[in-house]
Amino acid sequence: MSEYNLEKLVDEITKEVLRALASNTGLSSNTSLSSNISLKDESKGIDPFLLSPCEALTGECNACGHCPSKLEDKVLQIIQGGACRIGGTLGMPSVRPDLASLIDHTLLKPEATKEDVIKLCQEAVQHKFASVCINPSWVSLVKEQVEGSSVKVCTVVGFPLGATTTIAKVMETRDAIANGADEIDMVLNVGALKAKQDDLVFKDIQAVREASSEKILKVILETALLSDEEKVRACKLAKQAGADFVKTSTGFGPGGATVHDVALMRETVGEEMGVKASGGIRDYETALKMVEAGATRIGASASVTIVKKAAAGNGGKY
Amino acid sequence: MSEYNLEKLVDEITKEVLRALASNTGLSSNTSLSSNISLKDESKGIDPFLLSPCEALTGECNACGHCPSKLEDKVLQIIQGGACRIGGTLGMPSVRPDLASLIDHTLLKPEATKEDVIKLCQEAVQHKFASVCINPSWVSLVKEQVEGSSVKVCTVVGFPLGATTTIAKVMETRDAIANGADEIDMVLNVGALKAKQDDLVFKDIQAVREASSEKILKVILETALLSDEEKVRACKLAKQAGADFVKTSTGFGPGGATVHDVALMRETVGEEMGVKASGGIRDYETALKMVEAGATRIGASASVTIVKKAAAGNGGKY
Repeated sequence: MSEYNLEKLVDEITKEVLRALASNTGLSSNTSLSSNISLKDESKGIDPFLLSPCEALTGECNACGHCPSKLEDKVLQIIQGGACRIGGTLGMPSVRPDLASLIDHTLLKPEATKEDVIKLCQEAVQHKFASVCINPSWVSLVKEQVEGSSVKVCTVVGFPLGATTTIAKVMETRDAIANGADEIDMVLNVGALKAKQDDLVFKDIQAVREASSEKILKVILETALLSDEEKVRACKLAKQAGADFVKTSTGFGPGGATVHDVALMRETVGEEMGVKASGGIRDYETALKMVEAGATRIGASASVTIVKKAAAGNGGKY
Repeated sequence: MSEYNLEKLVDEITKEVLRALASNTGLSSNTSLSSNISLKDESKGIDPFLLSPCEALTGECNACGHCPSKLEDKVLQIIQGGACRIGGTLGMPSVRPDLASLIDHTLLKPEATKEDVIKLCQEAVQHKFASVCINPSWVSLVKEQVEGSSVKVCTVVGFPLGATTTIAKVMETRDAIANGADEIDMVLNVGALKAKQDDLVFKDIQAVREASSEKILKVILETALLSDEEKVRACKLAKQAGADFVKTSTGFGPGGATVHDVALMRETVGEEMGVKASGGIRDYETALKMVEAGATRIGASASVTIVKKAAAGNGGKY
């Protein structure tokens, strides 16, 4: 991570953690903090740099911004809830990119068996990945397997072609949530986007947004099929429809995430939405490049390899 | 087509057309004749070889078996309804493999636009393909486009991974039929099949079978992911669950139809079910090999190329 990004991270830390901890509702393990919380709402006017570390462990919070060291578990919950950026303030212990908590541990191959899915869940719990991302028929099983851990259940809708009807996408979403899904990664209607049927694309996302209400909704663009103009238009439609994340790829298309696409998506949606880089991310270096380009979530099957490499570069800890 | 296959075809002609024309209900353009009509029911004991061409055009039928020349349109309807084999009897004009009527004219790419789909429909109507096979979001459009022609509307369910829930597959099926689908190509649960969860695989197909009642149901195995033992087990489960066809591939997996797989599937399901070869069939020669191996329906995007080549080898007609 470059010096510039570290500085930017430190800056975001203060704002985001302050907002979460200083809110009236406080932190709760059951609260899904959507990533589209506006950072512009600074009405409280608290200057974090003026505060000393608080005694948060006793339940007191003076919005000091030292939560990432003082309240690691709760901060992880915020990230796992979909927050774009989380960090500490000046003077706290060194902040490093904790890739594990940004990763959706993914297995979407049709031939995956029950045994494979159980192994995936065990790895996700062990490494504290953000979520386990599996096909809809595995949601109930995954829900059971990760019960009691911080790992979320992520599944896919209209996947991987995005060419099912809106009604079908809504039904799939409701069914997935009924089975225990916390996060929905839907594929937008690529053909409609290409034909400039923006209203159809928007309503398709909006309907799934309504069906998923309190859950995290990511919209997969399948960037490898799109021109830059189409990627930008898709990001704007997803943002207008109220999605929490835009996501690059299904992993089944002609290409995966690229630094160019992640940067373009980040630039388009601003800091208020999450960007998930997925497809073809098989090593630590690639994952890190995506984070540096603006990704706040990584979709990967090679997640264990990625975090082990991250750990090796960090004294064996991650 | 070899001499042997031509003989076999002529033999099947008699039985199948006789059954259709001699039945109490008669032929109707609205009747979907399922391909799983048993050929073993020969209770009427009519010997087709003893009969002379009838005067069917006047409404009279003496079960002569000359329908393919006398009642070409109605015979095409039977084929398009999913019948395994259709033909004439000895002495009728030459029978040739009419590949067009065996073909599901297919466009399942996610980036297909409305314009592409309309062109597909026009080709299907022009060349009298069995059906237009498209993603669910296009069903309504295709229904409008092929209205008044013999071309059926075919769509896909749980496609292409087969890893959605049974409830989602049922909902998708109902939605597709409400929008005008005549044929449903569902993907079975590959992971469950591999883990020998046969009951789950069976019930998944059975539920879609119930939801599709009078329509044609094809079960896609995604053969490239399966061992021969798994292919055989899948065929048996599909047959037990009441499907009309088994189908090799989605076109999105690691491989398409092979002569070996088609022959194995035909051998397993017997003559009572249809076998659809799909995935990677891009020329006439390949299509013909599949038919010779036992395929009764071809899924292809290159359908126009295939029939033009067939026509070229047949004096320009097809």
